Amino acid sequence: MTDEARDALRAFVAERDWDQFHTAENLAKSIVIEAGELLEVFQWSGDVDDARVREELADVLTYCLLLADKIGADPQALILEKLATTRTKYPADKARGRSDKYDRL
Amino acid sequence: MTDEARDALRAFVAERDWDQFHTAENLAKSIVIEAGELLEVFQWSGDVDDARVREELADVLTYCLLLADKIGADPQALILEKLATTRTKYPADKARGRSDKYDRL
Amino acid sequence: MTDEARDALRAFVAERDWDQFHTAENLAKSIVIEAGELLEVFQWSGDVDDARVREELADVLTYCLLLADKIGADPQALILEKLATTRTKYPADKARGRSDKYDRL
Amino acid sequence: MTDEARDALRAFVAERDWDQFHTAENLAKSIVIEAGELLEVFQWSGDVDDARVREELADVLTYCLLLADKIGADPQALILEKLATTRTKYPADKARGRSDKYDRL
Repeated sequence: MTDEARDALRAFVAERDWDQFHTAENLAKSIVIEAGELLEVFQWSGDVDDARVREELADVLTYCLLLADKIGADPQALILEKLATTRTKYPADKARGRSDKYDRL
Repeated sequence: MTDEARDALRAFVAERDWDQFHTAENLAKSIVIEAGELLEVFQWSGDVDDARVREELADVLTYCLLLADKIGADPQALILEKLATTRTKYPADKARGRSDKYDRL
Repeated sequence: MTDEARDALRAFVAERDWDQFHTAENLAKSIVIEAGELLEVFQWSGDVDDARVREELADVLTYCLLLADKIGADPQALILEKLATTRTKYPADKARGRSDKYDRL
Repeated sequence: MTDEARDALRAFVAERDWDQFHTAENLAKSIVIEAGELLEVFQWSGDVDDARVREELADVLTYCLLLADKIGADPQALILEKLATTRTKYPADKARGRSDKYDRL
């Protein structure tokens, strides 16, 4: 189902001949730049305008999909693979109700 | 970015009773923190270890999906909605082959 | 932020022949990477360990001084110059007690 | 010598009654937000406008000084203290000409 988003992004980039700018490094920079704009919505208060959150989150997601496509990875597969690792680092019985890092559990 | 990833993340969070930590603001902080770790792979060189990129990108995507779920948004819908706006800000004929911001096109 | 810190950093970098890695762009990447580590101290709670804040803030400041030195700027002069601009964008009488951006004052 | 910058910032904040917004956490968020804007200058190319770098670096430095002041730390002392630690983690003879992390030296 992300194929639809991925294909729309590929077409958007191709129409503008922007692939030349989309090195993995530039996309990684773009992800943190947009993540900063997302955090800006929460800079002074947690009581925020949802429309701004949606828009900034969309920008982060967009660059994440472009980077995933650049390295030939499927976003959902990346998430599920990493989740398997995280499950072992944070066993439910030890981690329940705690925000500590795994090495402090 | 499908229901499968969302449902796996929901189960993972529920098993650990972590929803209490996942305010929209904390998730936005987490996205930029993980985006910084992704950029760290590229800190001194663009010639990087793909396995590290996959792992750090997975972390950014994971928090993006958790935030999308928190605000009741579908990640793919967010991307496609934002892409429609971006298409109008960056008309293909004006933006082709240029990395300038829309207000400089 | 004085010559003492700048000179100590210059000597540290020279002894390690690290100037070759310290392009303005790599230093800018390093600043946001370290800023993310600083924010990680506050990821799940505002009640934090001051020693960690001091250490991570030191890293951000260190790369800021290296970048300032790279572009031949004096950190204190940069701050005071920008403050003059900000004073005009945020007149005390309009901005008092408000966290709004200048274009919303 | 940063006393001048620190005192100017304290006066600027006091005139606007902004200390109420400047929790350590909000300042840490602000540092990474501004660091993202600094990186944006380098988003697509390392060939950049120095005036923009100066302005964005000034913003990062400003929030760094505000956070240092908030936790009662002297920026220069923080840098020199951390540098002493870093010298031991990166011995000149081992680290010379290498960008590897200390645990890979």
